[in-house]
Amino acid sequence: MLTSQIKEHLINITGAENFVDSQVERLVYSYDATPDYQSMPDAVVSPRSSEEVAKILALCNEYKIPVIPRGSGTNLCAGTCPVKGGIVILFNHMNQILEIDEENLTVTCQPGVITLDLIREVEKKGLFYPPDPSSMKISTIGGNLNENSGGLRGLKYGVTRDYVLGLEVALPNGEIVRTGGKLAKDVAGYDLTRLFIGSEGTLGIITEATLKLIPIPKTKKTMLVHYQDLEDAARSVSKIIANKVIPATLEFLDQPTLKVVEDYSRIGLPTDVKCVLLIEQDGEGHSVEKDMIKIEEICKSENAYSIQIAQTENEAEALRTARRNALSALARMKPTTILEDATVPRSEIAKMVMAINEIANKHQINICTFGHAGDGNLHPTCPTDVRDKDEMQRVENAFDEIFDKAIELGGTITGEHGVGIVKAPYLEWKLGESGVNVMKSIKDALDPNHIMNPGKMFAKDTRKRVVVSR
Amino acid sequence: MLTSQIKEHLINITGAENFVDSQVERLVYSYDATPDYQSMPDAVVSPRSSEEVAKILALCNEYKIPVIPRGSGTNLCAGTCPVKGGIVILFNHMNQILEIDEENLTVTCQPGVITLDLIREVEKKGLFYPPDPSSMKISTIGGNLNENSGGLRGLKYGVTRDYVLGLEVALPNGEIVRTGGKLAKDVAGYDLTRLFIGSEGTLGIITEATLKLIPIPKTKKTMLVHYQDLEDAARSVSKIIANKVIPATLEFLDQPTLKVVEDYSRIGLPTDVKCVLLIEQDGEGHSVEKDMIKIEEICKSENAYSIQIAQTENEAEALRTARRNALSALARMKPTTILEDATVPRSEIAKMVMAINEIANKHQINICTFGHAGDGNLHPTCPTDVRDKDEMQRVENAFDEIFDKAIELGGTITGEHGVGIVKAPYLEWKLGESGVNVMKSIKDALDPNHIMNPGKMFAKDTRKRVVVSR
Repeated sequence: MLTSQIKEHLINITGAENFVDSQVERLVYSYDATPDYQSMPDAVVSPRSSEEVAKILALCNEYKIPVIPRGSGTNLCAGTCPVKGGIVILFNHMNQILEIDEENLTVTCQPGVITLDLIREVEKKGLFYPPDPSSMKISTIGGNLNENSGGLRGLKYGVTRDYVLGLEVALPNGEIVRTGGKLAKDVAGYDLTRLFIGSEGTLGIITEATLKLIPIPKTKKTMLVHYQDLEDAARSVSKIIANKVIPATLEFLDQPTLKVVEDYSRIGLPTDVKCVLLIEQDGEGHSVEKDMIKIEEICKSENAYSIQIAQTENEAEALRTARRNALSALARMKPTTILEDATVPRSEIAKMVMAINEIANKHQINICTFGHAGDGNLHPTCPTDVRDKDEMQRVENAFDEIFDKAIELGGTITGEHGVGIVKAPYLEWKLGESGVNVMKSIKDALDPNHIMNPGKMFAKDTRKRVVVSR
Repeated sequence: MLTSQIKEHLINITGAENFVDSQVERLVYSYDATPDYQSMPDAVVSPRSSEEVAKILALCNEYKIPVIPRGSGTNLCAGTCPVKGGIVILFNHMNQILEIDEENLTVTCQPGVITLDLIREVEKKGLFYPPDPSSMKISTIGGNLNENSGGLRGLKYGVTRDYVLGLEVALPNGEIVRTGGKLAKDVAGYDLTRLFIGSEGTLGIITEATLKLIPIPKTKKTMLVHYQDLEDAARSVSKIIANKVIPATLEFLDQPTLKVVEDYSRIGLPTDVKCVLLIEQDGEGHSVEKDMIKIEEICKSENAYSIQIAQTENEAEALRTARRNALSALARMKPTTILEDATVPRSEIAKMVMAINEIANKHQINICTFGHAGDGNLHPTCPTDVRDKDEMQRVENAFDEIFDKAIELGGTITGEHGVGIVKAPYLEWKLGESGVNVMKSIKDALDPNHIMNPGKMFAKDTRKRVVVSR
């Protein structure tokens, strides 16, 4: 609980109308999109400027009060769950696009802007902001920056990190720093811009960002390729890229996912095939045509069962929606949906998908898998029920084995969802003790009082790596 | 001087044949490509493996001996000058390309590989490593990583940082960590990969790197556009990009540079025009044709005096060579060549070029300017003589004003050359005291004994910012 003195300080900074600490309001911000994590904050504040954010941080640093910056809470690693109480900071007043600069191809915005709103605004000027996380309709740019969000266009265009030119950041000590600028190149000192990106609010609070834009691709083509064998699909993915074609989107959905999505969306998806690849290419019309023909040839040579090419934008949109709705559809099946993001080199996708299926069978749980095949970034998803303690234990054991397998194949414990609380016990599996120690030393250097989103990224206890007979 | 005990330790690690400390050998590594900086190291070692590098670091950390990792010493910020003595580490034994992975589009290599050798090897497989610093014939990948090198293809393709997927790094404490991997996406913890890139050997030593490759563009076209007015050229640059055309290369050379280069290369460059733009586009033949026609139209509409389109690859190569030879040609003029890299948003290039000319006139020095116009990254270059103390003082004052102007225009003190010793006194101009303090705290966290390339990046004294009447 906050003392009345601190409460008064906070109200002095943000105004009484931007401070809440009623039971109901605190409950609203006690959890995020991650199942089974909940913890009450002490208060929720909505600053109106970078200066107010900095003042809140200085105050919290003085009194060692945890601070949890929060966008729309769509993250899936419990990254915004106030596990140690403290102050949740919202950015609903800091949600402006400040400038679209058509000469330097940049957009400057506050952290509270909704991702899709920003994408639509820049598209009006013929410009393109590629990072498109599945949550983009409600996620914020600030959240995307803190999680280094990916999306469906990552294969060709990269992730959030690749589109950030400069940041304004409020530090735990109440100072404000600016990194980078409207600059294609800047090597003045360490890369603080990218240190803050993906740091999950554990080092400081991003209060403004200058993002890089590119010209919008002129045309786009979409196809859905059906397979009766997982390995044929996986081989197609590798072969497309080894043939020097980099599609804008190269997504995978397995049969269990297809059935659930079709049941939910009724858009005529095939449910009698083992899996599909959703493939899109964009660019100049001429190049897109050539690439699509080549992709079709490669898929056929790898025993594609049939190929469905969208003839209209409506058809293409239906196919995209099928993929975008995967999580929503799966979430309807059971009270709890555990969605993970084990990631491997793309050459290892077939092995990873088959390992996931074996592990699910072994632990007698249901796992549907979909994801960004071109990036090797899979989302094995388990519809379950947190109240079933026995099943939850099996789910946890299964995901332990899945992460272990990903590491074994040269992969990582999280491709785009972040560490948060959920993956913290596994971080050492990827980085080793030395790697985690380097990160902890950076955390200590920037946030010596550990007020910034405490309890995230670094776990008290590392889970033991699974020893499965191989 | 090293004690005989430490010398023995080092010889035990690397073998006697890979340790030298004669006067002559130390002299060879007492300076790099930066004029007027020289300081003798105590010894020079050539480790044969990551493990040997780690052992050298552990030893130097124990005895607090400075360590300076050095590629080919082509940097222009005195970044590899052993200003506090210590051990220079060479990578001549660690110069192998370990693997080109055509399925995952990666190349894994040791730090001592020559940049151009790597580019040529991957091109044999139809793959493309875009970062092409002007020094690429002799620079090493390790040096490029430590400096986050740019190049002529930066506008469209980005810089070294954008092509690094994973690193192996030996830490000052003698531990070895691995970051990233053959992964398109990885958000397991802070972005250590990009923290080490551009850290100029002040945090650890990169012992292996996995780099991202892309398919090689199918065709390329080259043109040289002549202007009688600087502002026309600058407006063309902005207008090309505002029209959503991103050329692969968009370089600028002013008249003084053209005269010197033509005198050196005799390739028929125009010397009667105020400046030229060297413009290249690559990609699918059809798209390249369209872009080149559009660029030509834009340049004409901005009063281009004449346009020279390379009809053969030999002609194109001659034009590229003109730009690549700029530094070599300028270096012939006077005993000392001071080449800088003030960088501004590309919309500010005209203002910056004119400010450079005014500042040169004011201080009665000769400055030739060329550089990456599309990136706003200019290289004002002053042929001078370090023995002329009076002129050197004027040169230094002039560059103070140039950096000040760059900052005023939203730019930075270094776009691609790094901070090293040369820019250290200016770092605070760009980052403010708070920004520099954050960087210093990271340095202290990773290298508490300050053994890693000491005397670089952080200056004892910050230069006062110039107050010019505006």
